[in-house]
Amino acid sequence: MIVIMERRASSEQIDHVVARVEELGFRAHLSRGEERTIIGIIGDERPVAVESLEVLPGVERVVPVLQPFKLASRDFKPDNSIVRIGDVSIGGEEIVVMAGPCAVESREQIFETAWAVKEAGARVLRGGAFKPRTSPYAFQGLGLPGLELLAEVSEKVGIPTVSEVMSPSDVEIVARYVDILQIGARNMQNYSLLQEVGKTSKPVMLKRGMMSTIHEWLMSAEYILANRNYNVILCERGIRTFETATRNTLDINAIGVGKQLTHLPVMVDPSHATGKANLVGAAAKAAIAAGADALIIEVHPTPERALSDGAQSLKPEAFVKLMVELRQVAAAVGRRI
Amino acid sequence: MIVIMERRASSEQIDHVVARVEELGFRAHLSRGEERTIIGIIGDERPVAVESLEVLPGVERVVPVLQPFKLASRDFKPDNSIVRIGDVSIGGEEIVVMAGPCAVESREQIFETAWAVKEAGARVLRGGAFKPRTSPYAFQGLGLPGLELLAEVSEKVGIPTVSEVMSPSDVEIVARYVDILQIGARNMQNYSLLQEVGKTSKPVMLKRGMMSTIHEWLMSAEYILANRNYNVILCERGIRTFETATRNTLDINAIGVGKQLTHLPVMVDPSHATGKANLVGAAAKAAIAAGADALIIEVHPTPERALSDGAQSLKPEAFVKLMVELRQVAAAVGRRI
Amino acid sequence: MIVIMERRASSEQIDHVVARVEELGFRAHLSRGEERTIIGIIGDERPVAVESLEVLPGVERVVPVLQPFKLASRDFKPDNSIVRIGDVSIGGEEIVVMAGPCAVESREQIFETAWAVKEAGARVLRGGAFKPRTSPYAFQGLGLPGLELLAEVSEKVGIPTVSEVMSPSDVEIVARYVDILQIGARNMQNYSLLQEVGKTSKPVMLKRGMMSTIHEWLMSAEYILANRNYNVILCERGIRTFETATRNTLDINAIGVGKQLTHLPVMVDPSHATGKANLVGAAAKAAIAAGADALIIEVHPTPERALSDGAQSLKPEAFVKLMVELRQVAAAVGRRI
Amino acid sequence: MIVIMERRASSEQIDHVVARVEELGFRAHLSRGEERTIIGIIGDERPVAVESLEVLPGVERVVPVLQPFKLASRDFKPDNSIVRIGDVSIGGEEIVVMAGPCAVESREQIFETAWAVKEAGARVLRGGAFKPRTSPYAFQGLGLPGLELLAEVSEKVGIPTVSEVMSPSDVEIVARYVDILQIGARNMQNYSLLQEVGKTSKPVMLKRGMMSTIHEWLMSAEYILANRNYNVILCERGIRTFETATRNTLDINAIGVGKQLTHLPVMVDPSHATGKANLVGAAAKAAIAAGADALIIEVHPTPERALSDGAQSLKPEAFVKLMVELRQVAAAVGRRI
Repeated sequence: MIVIMERRASSEQIDHVVARVEELGFRAHLSRGEERTIIGIIGDERPVAVESLEVLPGVERVVPVLQPFKLASRDFKPDNSIVRIGDVSIGGEEIVVMAGPCAVESREQIFETAWAVKEAGARVLRGGAFKPRTSPYAFQGLGLPGLELLAEVSEKVGIPTVSEVMSPSDVEIVARYVDILQIGARNMQNYSLLQEVGKTSKPVMLKRGMMSTIHEWLMSAEYILANRNYNVILCERGIRTFETATRNTLDINAIGVGKQLTHLPVMVDPSHATGKANLVGAAAKAAIAAGADALIIEVHPTPERALSDGAQSLKPEAFVKLMVELRQVAAAVGRRI
Repeated sequence: MIVIMERRASSEQIDHVVARVEELGFRAHLSRGEERTIIGIIGDERPVAVESLEVLPGVERVVPVLQPFKLASRDFKPDNSIVRIGDVSIGGEEIVVMAGPCAVESREQIFETAWAVKEAGARVLRGGAFKPRTSPYAFQGLGLPGLELLAEVSEKVGIPTVSEVMSPSDVEIVARYVDILQIGARNMQNYSLLQEVGKTSKPVMLKRGMMSTIHEWLMSAEYILANRNYNVILCERGIRTFETATRNTLDINAIGVGKQLTHLPVMVDPSHATGKANLVGAAAKAAIAAGADALIIEVHPTPERALSDGAQSLKPEAFVKLMVELRQVAAAVGRRI
Repeated sequence: MIVIMERRASSEQIDHVVARVEELGFRAHLSRGEERTIIGIIGDERPVAVESLEVLPGVERVVPVLQPFKLASRDFKPDNSIVRIGDVSIGGEEIVVMAGPCAVESREQIFETAWAVKEAGARVLRGGAFKPRTSPYAFQGLGLPGLELLAEVSEKVGIPTVSEVMSPSDVEIVARYVDILQIGARNMQNYSLLQEVGKTSKPVMLKRGMMSTIHEWLMSAEYILANRNYNVILCERGIRTFETATRNTLDINAIGVGKQLTHLPVMVDPSHATGKANLVGAAAKAAIAAGADALIIEVHPTPERALSDGAQSLKPEAFVKLMVELRQVAAAVGRRI
Repeated sequence: MIVIMERRASSEQIDHVVARVEELGFRAHLSRGEERTIIGIIGDERPVAVESLEVLPGVERVVPVLQPFKLASRDFKPDNSIVRIGDVSIGGEEIVVMAGPCAVESREQIFETAWAVKEAGARVLRGGAFKPRTSPYAFQGLGLPGLELLAEVSEKVGIPTVSEVMSPSDVEIVARYVDILQIGARNMQNYSLLQEVGKTSKPVMLKRGMMSTIHEWLMSAEYILANRNYNVILCERGIRTFETATRNTLDINAIGVGKQLTHLPVMVDPSHATGKANLVGAAAKAAIAAGADALIIEVHPTPERALSDGAQSLKPEAFVKLMVELRQVAAAVGRRI
């Protein structure tokens, strides 16, 4: 960390900062410039509330030097991590496509979708049983019966599943029925929930909060890793900006930045990142071209009757067509689906 | 709700939308303009996933007409709601100031602060026992011993308390020890938690998410109200924008918009909304001038030693001075502290 | 346009709105719902300040129905427009790559770069002579001598050029020396400048403002088209968001949304959209995969010595390598470079 | 400036950065931490494109130390600057209220408004003659006849005027007719225009761009100051965020941050910062409470007939009532109107 003093900071003020820094167990390193004195702080700044130095008299601002995450960092583990779900590997040469409805609505719906997406080449089935809805009056998911349907369809169709868990007390039961635990964007900083999934050994798909920086996203991953679950997949799903033409703004740069900073796989949800079925294909292709390790795409047999997210769901036939295009883009960047 | 058709929408497409609208139990009302046909939908649109109509062929976009919240709405209850905590009333003529440290750190710290803020005129003591921290390596709060200290200081000093609850399974215990349950900004859309506090009868301070719209904030309040807890206080605490000179951007307009849309009290947290102690006073005065019903201000005996949020905490003597200024602004807008 | 009345709006208030609407020359169409009355306004709303209806008593809000742009709209011209610069066509099957330094700095620099990018397959040379710099103390471009160098290099190397014009009074001279006039992001709503380039017949590359919506971008294009210059190319260059890990956030969805709304070509500037040389390649590939018609990429022989934008400039050898990859992605989406 | 090296940066890479720093004319100061080496750069970094150091091998990032503005800075001039327009002083104890219509529309309209706002206590009359409109089809202002009306009303009513100038070539004529030159939000980074108003001696009201940081705003002021016009008033008018309930988000913190960083007066436009007449009063009171030196408020005799910005204009009687309230808040913070 670096403390930048005000232009008119006195010697006493500088000495006070140095004393406080040393009291915290660090060594201070002074550098007197023409206009400002700078105090470098040597040592691991992470566990200390160093921003509190900003209130000391004469301090202009404090600049952190170290990345605040450790286990998630490429400094800690230079090689790519690969997360395995049965014979599916995420983070390797193959780009994994997950697909399925926003929510499990009925036996027919989930079976029909599962067969269709598997046939088209999807390797994981998505389907929500617990749905975080902005309105308390909207469909909240089938709950436990939805999980049971997921487990049944998974076994009969032969495809692993991913489903969202919203509450720490549901982690155990969701983990019993599905293969990948999804942490939704609204819960990215629900630390009780992160700690709970961190105590399991299940793969966790951690969606980026719509209001979260890439650094905060990696800090949330760090919560899971610090609880000894290393099977974390990061999922960019669009951020909130001033633009309202789309539901969210896909931060395509987050793939590259993420892969530079961390060894964890980075995937993309083009359905939420656009919010409109007719934009999903372009976003999916862009994600692959930019280096995504996996995609998760909403597919519903009859989008206009979907109980949630109908506007952004593809019909199975559109998904089949898209998969052909995705394979071509994957090949163009030296990967395969 | 209103469905706006594309310019070149065919009669068949229009008929299809009308049929689907009627199938959903609504009446459709056609209006053919020079360039576009518009279909008005008559009936309560709230429980239906109407955005799914956007995928029907020929539809350009769907515009909701009704506010999605009911119980929180001024249409439902035109008069201001007043939330009572003992002899403290929030939402009436008096502006209530809550103050205290970010986190309960020790017996000395919390007692010293409690006496000081009460003496200066604060009516509620704040203090976190469970702290949501971006980093898993940062101080996470004292937990249960922190709650016990809060209950003790509350009784001895004679001041009610507000403290954050982060997990549904902690609601019962936090409710046992404190007077107002705080839902933090990061948990504004943690629906499991909202439902759980909705099942208590404790006053709830619902902080606005840092990238949540005012509508989403009211929808989260609706979750609590729909579970029959009507004691909800809305708290604006700054939103995330592109500006980095301050920790957050105080959305001062949210007070007026909030009070137009809802009968619930609206308060402001000028400490998080600025992130810097030397900006807290201006933000607090602005909040009162703009109509806030209450404030929550971070005060710490030694901010440079605070385990969290030191940079934005006032010393007790600065808080005393600020209270004098706040009383003058309150009087200027016809209220009192 | 649609006027949504408040729930408690009186008959007199509704009549007043209808009277005002008819006074403005429109027909009003009433639709009485269970909770709200809605007034549809039939006629071309564009030239009227209809938002002023929002101040009438009893009005809750006003929703526009028509897109505010006409000439830029696909409703006006369904087929793709192709902008031609000599034998270069933008908006057709070929994806055009423009490349060169941020600023023209010297004869050696611009000649060396021009030969290198042409050899690698770039079809247009970029190079700024007038530079909009945040600081008045930063290098502001060579001005007229820079334009003369551009004209000379263009003729000798055999490659057309694009360069920014910042002031209405400079339009004539810049148009004399270069082939494409660039309107920079900061000037997207400099209407005096838009009108001036609209009076020429030169192709105009209109960069999206860093905090402008796609609709506003198209309205700025409309200013140029309305002045009878139809040779407009839209350029997405990243928007400003809360994320600070990159210089801007590339709004990859803007390509698809843009191409749905308008017939004009849509291109991408991956250099500004990332701000970091090691992220440019991924963004460029993503842009092509998402349907961009052209790219503009910053290339400098010695980025660490560049007088501006060095951090995001590729060396010629990196550009050569990138072009090979871009050709593969272009082929995967059925296009060529 | 400080260069932070990557964890694995080699000695050669560090030496290379040091060599390049010295070649640029600075002294380098090394500080080797446990995980990172940091290179402090001593000297005035402002005129150099130092971000280009980011491309050197082994560099993680570059952190500027000095504020990029000089003449606008409190370091340069610690005391408040006061801008004088005849007997009106902006930046002193008195809070100056400017008021009037968005645009000059007719003789009756501007005279009626001028008498009304002067009578209510406004010290400056606003009125646009050149209007920057998003749509080329919207009312663009009366132009020169509008300026003539402003000059006439100013003389007859006895009130100075403020009006926007949009093009460098119009600066001379607008300066001839009005007392304060307004640079609109969309032109905050129109550097040709800033330089031109910098060459006059007229007071300049510089609106903050809706997409501009406080630092960029001060850099734009620096452009004017660097051209030797020191009569600059900064005007916060709301920034663009994700919130759509209001036209803009008033950044109330910008007043305090602005006044800490610069000696220039800081004022607020509550009309644009809200976009809704019924929110203007709260925003205006908040601005005064937070320390604003002046306000500019839109007033129109018949807002529903205004050719622009009707939704946010106050009627004269509402303005009279607001002025009474503003005086009370001003007194509460030790100032007067």
